[in-house]
Amino acid sequence: MDLIAGVLNITAGGKRIVIINGDTAISLGVHSSDRVRVSYGGKELIAIADLAADFPPDRIWFYLEMAQALGVIGNETVQVQLAPMPESLGHVRAKIRGQRLLDQEIRTIVNDVVEQHLSDIEISAFLTALKIYGLSMGETEALSLAMVESGQSLSFGAGPILDKHSIGGIPGDKTSMIVVPIVAAAGFTIPKTSSRAITSPAGTADRVETLCPVDLSLGEIRSVVKKTNGCLVWGGSLELAPADDLFIQVEYPLGIDPLLLPSIMSKKKAIGATHVVIDIPTGMGAKIKTATEAYTLASDFVHLGKHLGMSVECALTFGEQPLGCGIGPALEAREALSTLMGEGPVDVHEKAVSLAGLLFELVGEKNGRLKAEEILRSGKAMAKLQEIIEAQGGNPSIKPEDIPVGPEHAEVRAPQKGRVLWISTDGIVQVARAAGTPKEKGAGIVLHAKVGDAVAKDGVLFEVYAERSNKLESALELAKRLEPVVLTKKTEERMLLDQYPAKTAAHDESFMLER
Amino acid sequence: MDLIAGVLNITAGGKRIVIINGDTAISLGVHSSDRVRVSYGGKELIAIADLAADFPPDRIWFYLEMAQALGVIGNETVQVQLAPMPESLGHVRAKIRGQRLLDQEIRTIVNDVVEQHLSDIEISAFLTALKIYGLSMGETEALSLAMVESGQSLSFGAGPILDKHSIGGIPGDKTSMIVVPIVAAAGFTIPKTSSRAITSPAGTADRVETLCPVDLSLGEIRSVVKKTNGCLVWGGSLELAPADDLFIQVEYPLGIDPLLLPSIMSKKKAIGATHVVIDIPTGMGAKIKTATEAYTLASDFVHLGKHLGMSVECALTFGEQPLGCGIGPALEAREALSTLMGEGPVDVHEKAVSLAGLLFELVGEKNGRLKAEEILRSGKAMAKLQEIIEAQGGNPSIKPEDIPVGPEHAEVRAPQKGRVLWISTDGIVQVARAAGTPKEKGAGIVLHAKVGDAVAKDGVLFEVYAERSNKLESALELAKRLEPVVLTKKTEERMLLDQYPAKTAAHDESFMLER
Repeated sequence: MDLIAGVLNITAGGKRIVIINGDTAISLGVHSSDRVRVSYGGKELIAIADLAADFPPDRIWFYLEMAQALGVIGNETVQVQLAPMPESLGHVRAKIRGQRLLDQEIRTIVNDVVEQHLSDIEISAFLTALKIYGLSMGETEALSLAMVESGQSLSFGAGPILDKHSIGGIPGDKTSMIVVPIVAAAGFTIPKTSSRAITSPAGTADRVETLCPVDLSLGEIRSVVKKTNGCLVWGGSLELAPADDLFIQVEYPLGIDPLLLPSIMSKKKAIGATHVVIDIPTGMGAKIKTATEAYTLASDFVHLGKHLGMSVECALTFGEQPLGCGIGPALEAREALSTLMGEGPVDVHEKAVSLAGLLFELVGEKNGRLKAEEILRSGKAMAKLQEIIEAQGGNPSIKPEDIPVGPEHAEVRAPQKGRVLWISTDGIVQVARAAGTPKEKGAGIVLHAKVGDAVAKDGVLFEVYAERSNKLESALELAKRLEPVVLTKKTEERMLLDQYPAKTAAHDESFMLER
Repeated sequence: MDLIAGVLNITAGGKRIVIINGDTAISLGVHSSDRVRVSYGGKELIAIADLAADFPPDRIWFYLEMAQALGVIGNETVQVQLAPMPESLGHVRAKIRGQRLLDQEIRTIVNDVVEQHLSDIEISAFLTALKIYGLSMGETEALSLAMVESGQSLSFGAGPILDKHSIGGIPGDKTSMIVVPIVAAAGFTIPKTSSRAITSPAGTADRVETLCPVDLSLGEIRSVVKKTNGCLVWGGSLELAPADDLFIQVEYPLGIDPLLLPSIMSKKKAIGATHVVIDIPTGMGAKIKTATEAYTLASDFVHLGKHLGMSVECALTFGEQPLGCGIGPALEAREALSTLMGEGPVDVHEKAVSLAGLLFELVGEKNGRLKAEEILRSGKAMAKLQEIIEAQGGNPSIKPEDIPVGPEHAEVRAPQKGRVLWISTDGIVQVARAAGTPKEKGAGIVLHAKVGDAVAKDGVLFEVYAERSNKLESALELAKRLEPVVLTKKTEERMLLDQYPAKTAAHDESFMLER
């Protein structure tokens, strides 16, 4: 059927969407959310049809991306017809029914996600079904490989390529900034790509960005790694697994994370990693609450690694409270530097040398932990980080105190004497975000008391830093309400965790998307 | 945070969506799909935020509906902040985890669907989880009541209110057009609301519309029913269960129907029905394939009816082939009239008097079927339909042959001698739609042979009607390819139903959304 083209002067976020009048749609046999095939000047595109009663008939409107792709500017006559249901939608429906999917079926789905042939409604149903049924190892492997195939890849030639990744969830976890220079200083290649914060106060990319640029091209990364053995860059613009970025957009509002394994492992595969340590923080404040869950996940990581040709070792780490004291991009970068200079908190030091040690042992070294310890104490790791900072375009002689933190600053004190019983991860994250993290890099929290520490009445529990006074106020207000650092005295008041049915609105269960 | 308003001169299909620049969103702490609270001139609205990199910062764009609701025309300063996660999203997430939902939680979800506070992504996840886990009777009841509360209701005073509903799926099912006049002629009140076709060749509303208007207001319906005891109207614009209309939009692309029970029963409740017969066509060509499934569904309908204060009787009916011979709005209306005049196909007559008989027995009459038979044979049912047609604004003296059918017309003949082994519902539906149904009311199919009938070589299997010659051609081409009427000779060629993995693209499994 011939329709007159109209162009809407706005973008649809990359989505291929057209708008058609409801009656015109009936003539085309098109129902809302059906796909249409639009042909013009020898080009042909598939788009999802939105129906609108108040648009005039016999016309079709394109958002900007689609208009440009098709080469129309308005008032052209284009050929429009109902497109058959994409094959991938059949596979999505099969998954909703509980069917196991074959490699080729999963590849078709991933391709259609990248090509924008599947709508958000359909992707949401797919992810929900995966969450509920779980994925078989075959499906996990197929998804990982399909994601790698959909994106860019890096290769650093022969020899082992090491990598370290945390599944995330613990505020203040600046371990990568210490592990990478230790491993690179030992002469191993470790091209570390990281994410920015989505729901947390800081991602590794946000932390490193207080020292040097992190938004490097694939070519720049190659040259940094050639020079220094390592890098600490943002993976977000590298298109290593573009399908995953689209899945994440749908997972976020749902608070589900069914693709944790393929999401992480596809990116390791794309940078050519051969030996990988996966950190699984385990505990009340982490994504993984129990040892059983942690071992199950660890086993899946190891098996998937085997299928993908990677040696994987998992580290179950203590996840009951934030790591170290600093939380927020600048405060964490300061602490990472201090740790490399031998002055950081014990838990940060301990975690970093443990994980670097596991990596050394994974490539056949003996006494990996001791080796990591020696490299750190010798100052070689600090020197290596300086090299990396310089290679990425930063100032290598930066000292912890040179990293600017927020000028607005206040202390939160203990209302009573006691010991710290627990620290709420969620509460800390909310307060840090209210203070301005991750966008305002100098904002954040410095903990003065960790679990088990004795605190006097009016002793400092934590400091809050902000770049603007109104943010500091919001953060302090929230800190007062949430009381993220809980002292022993309160135990007996906390036996009742919740009531059901609830008297008040349900809690927002916080969801950490970072992988 | 203060942002400058911009207005996009297009509608968002009723959805409450705003567009914000990505950096501005970070400053607001807003992630894609998060909700924002927008305040202006004493008004406050919640909307879902779409992020766009190429929109300028410090501004917020509104689609037309939202701009009008807020009273902005552009360049005003509006207050925007991150809105807390809606309570209903917490319940959706609980359902994804498999939790049973309480009445109040379901009510919150239904309200937020109607208020557009939940996005398509979130509604899709909710429906997928319901499809996979199934609904408890408590959840089904709560959903039914919440849907009724969200919409308009009708009341016809004391006395039993009768109704009849088919879960759909059988082409050519014009039973309601015969049952309603039989029941109304017996002096019972039967205010029948029906849907238009979505995926089928004709809905009851499409059929009746060839005789008289069906798009009546609630007031007009009341007066028609007062005058005639019955009506045959379109329920689509009555807003009896607006939440359901929004759920259907998301269910359609997914090909799932988890809300079948609450969707149907909420509308029965909204028109005040007290005695309802539910038709469950059962068989290869129907939605429900086996007797076990049919009895399970029937039991759920009866139980749900009890909870909602309705007497429900289910009819399991023969669903192996289309009902009667005519398929398509005009051809079906012709056949319904013929049947009321004593000249219709046996199966149509038989089904209509059976269902009318069940309704009579449900309100305490004896020999209901006999009574229905007598009313039909006496001509009283035909006279009653004429009354209803007149009351709804049509010509009461219309004869079957007065209803215009497509001028383009061709016969499809048997390539060989044989008996009809089966008739593919899906094939018939596709051919009828290719011919122009439901939009072109004169288009459709007339079957000349039904299952078990003997056909000579070159005997007519069916006729195709269309309003335009190109549609007739498309339909005939499709008929040739699909061969919807299968003769016995072919049995031995059809032992292999499918192969897995498939050599070619997966079949589109057809999905009938009509309830």
